[in-house]
Amino acid sequence: MNEIIATYNLKDIKGNPLKKAEEIALGLTVGSWTDLPELEQTQLQKHKGKVVSVEEISDTEGEALIKVAYPQLNFSADLPAILTTVFGKLSLDGKVKLIDLEFPESLKKSFPGPRFGVEGIRGKLNVFDRPLLMSIFKGVIGRNIDYLANQLSSQALGGVDIVKDDEILFENHLTPMEERIQIGKRVLTNTFELTGHRTLYAVNLTGRSSQLREKARKAAELGADLLLFNVFGYGLDILQELREDEEIGLPIMAHPAVSGSFLSSDNYGFSHSLILGKLLRYSGADLSLFPSPYGSVALEKEKTLSIKHELLKDDEFYKKSFPVPSAGIHPGLVPLLMNDFGIESVINAGGGVHGHPGGAIAGGKAFRQAIDVHLNGQTLVNGSETNPELKTAIELWGYKEVYS
Amino acid sequence: MNEIIATYNLKDIKGNPLKKAEEIALGLTVGSWTDLPELEQTQLQKHKGKVVSVEEISDTEGEALIKVAYPQLNFSADLPAILTTVFGKLSLDGKVKLIDLEFPESLKKSFPGPRFGVEGIRGKLNVFDRPLLMSIFKGVIGRNIDYLANQLSSQALGGVDIVKDDEILFENHLTPMEERIQIGKRVLTNTFELTGHRTLYAVNLTGRSSQLREKARKAAELGADLLLFNVFGYGLDILQELREDEEIGLPIMAHPAVSGSFLSSDNYGFSHSLILGKLLRYSGADLSLFPSPYGSVALEKEKTLSIKHELLKDDEFYKKSFPVPSAGIHPGLVPLLMNDFGIESVINAGGGVHGHPGGAIAGGKAFRQAIDVHLNGQTLVNGSETNPELKTAIELWGYKEVYS
Repeated sequence: MNEIIATYNLKDIKGNPLKKAEEIALGLTVGSWTDLPELEQTQLQKHKGKVVSVEEISDTEGEALIKVAYPQLNFSADLPAILTTVFGKLSLDGKVKLIDLEFPESLKKSFPGPRFGVEGIRGKLNVFDRPLLMSIFKGVIGRNIDYLANQLSSQALGGVDIVKDDEILFENHLTPMEERIQIGKRVLTNTFELTGHRTLYAVNLTGRSSQLREKARKAAELGADLLLFNVFGYGLDILQELREDEEIGLPIMAHPAVSGSFLSSDNYGFSHSLILGKLLRYSGADLSLFPSPYGSVALEKEKTLSIKHELLKDDEFYKKSFPVPSAGIHPGLVPLLMNDFGIESVINAGGGVHGHPGGAIAGGKAFRQAIDVHLNGQTLVNGSETNPELKTAIELWGYKEVYS
Repeated sequence: MNEIIATYNLKDIKGNPLKKAEEIALGLTVGSWTDLPELEQTQLQKHKGKVVSVEEISDTEGEALIKVAYPQLNFSADLPAILTTVFGKLSLDGKVKLIDLEFPESLKKSFPGPRFGVEGIRGKLNVFDRPLLMSIFKGVIGRNIDYLANQLSSQALGGVDIVKDDEILFENHLTPMEERIQIGKRVLTNTFELTGHRTLYAVNLTGRSSQLREKARKAAELGADLLLFNVFGYGLDILQELREDEEIGLPIMAHPAVSGSFLSSDNYGFSHSLILGKLLRYSGADLSLFPSPYGSVALEKEKTLSIKHELLKDDEFYKKSFPVPSAGIHPGLVPLLMNDFGIESVINAGGGVHGHPGGAIAGGKAFRQAIDVHLNGQTLVNGSETNPELKTAIELWGYKEVYS
């Protein structure tokens, strides 16, 4: 039988954890059971939720890890139905955190996964042997299109692979999306002709839900490289619909804005790996941004690695999605990031590019140098001797070595 | 200047709360400030976020309530943009809970509020002088349409005003939505002819995001009374789009499924009043369900009252939305509920109707009796002497009096 298996961490369980697990399994499927006549039990058997396992973690705190299987027959093959089934009213019922969902193959077929994935994005850039370097427009609210064009140009000239819009840049008359795409294209064609380095620009897709697909199609038509999308301001199903639309056909970068509200608590909400890892990948994000363990907005290393694991693990149905550990990254953190996240990741910086004393071009170069130095097995200190931009960066921001 | 003002509760603030507040106000708007040339400061002034107030709550725990104003100029007039602005990356940055948002009038005009509201729903039922009574289908997964029709009929004959689908009933071949609407209509026309009591049926609107409006229009065409909607499996903006669609034109009941994931923590996420109160009302929910303080899934009384306050307070732009305190409600709790939530509320029961020893008809009657008894200023014990169904109910489930 095809079932989705949910793993929950429960705390403050009153009484027997197995009994609580059974209440969940029944309450979220067929309701009462033991009082049903035998004939009805037979009829409803295939709809009944089942406890898969109960692992008591702490007797004193009433904490347990429980797994419950929900028959696929009970819900339609979409995330709103799945989440409502496995974590609808349960999310409101005391200390309970949804740790994982295991999809049966029959259900996985209803989810597209990334259209391009790691290999597809690499193919667009023709870069296969190092982490990608991404940077972010800074302080662009209230600025005109020339200001953006200059920032974009500098970042590209610094060797950045992907430049993303600020996620808080919405439709506005100074820098409307369509103009950003067109000017961006012109700028990046110029820098490519100048340097031979290709840079992609991720434009922020914003506005009312029902207009997103039309806007994204228009973006594709205008030659956009990538879409940046604040998926958690909308819903995972909307991301999936953007991914599935053949007339859009663009890679999608999922921004974690607002997701802290349902990820950060140890007692409630969802695990980071399920949302920013598994479900973003299943729904079709080619890249997933999340706080790195090292920067200004830091996430525990173990959690960041669990996200990475979900994005990159082998899966016969889905392409891999790029992990993008973010926030407060400077070149001195590159060895740590590469150590943790490997080659199949994107190093993403904002202030660490724009705040370089030599400007954003030097800032980009410092990152690229840090990546190359680390790939060559050198320490940053050694490598910086022949790389002046890197030297300036690590003098300003410091560094952490992983080679001795 | 038109600004949205966000109120946050922050904990574990390192250093000066005012400094932290200023970092937020700048970081979520123009970025750096003091380093900008005077001319640029002048140009960007109207985009700059501003600290409105900082109230230190606990020095030792680094807790403060801060208010920050964000210029409306910075974002488009939709909730995804607003939430990303005021709680995008901030939601990921330590212990921070978004308590409230104050919309300027210019922004409120972009939100529709309920189409029908309390008065409109009352008008459909022709019931103006008491709380409404709602009940829920029980154990309908895996059952056929006759089973649902029987349950619906019993609930209506018991005097229930609104019957809602189970929120975990999705599109399925046994009881497809269109058939539920049509059969429901037939059943409820029959019971109305029999008893003169009108009952509305709220059908669960489910499926992929982009198909919802089409399905809802079809539901309206088939004569549906109300839509039940798992808004937090989708997104608030989708609710708003359903509300705004003139071809749908149906009242909408918002179910809180999944919302515990971002409401339950004291440290993270959103306040109940903002989401289940203010934003559901602004987006257009005519009814908002939430856990009552008394039942199986209980919410602190203060929180439930804050939701009610947001749904019912006078507002020149919006109609009122019905508060629907839910979960584990039986007739013995009616005095408490009416005391807390008043006449402008819906008393909502599942097991408390279906589990009545006399069946669902008696279950409905017991609730209506409890409401009338309380409205007459009687205690339940006194009132039950002439109301046998109520007597049975309070003998089984107990009761709490508010009159002495």
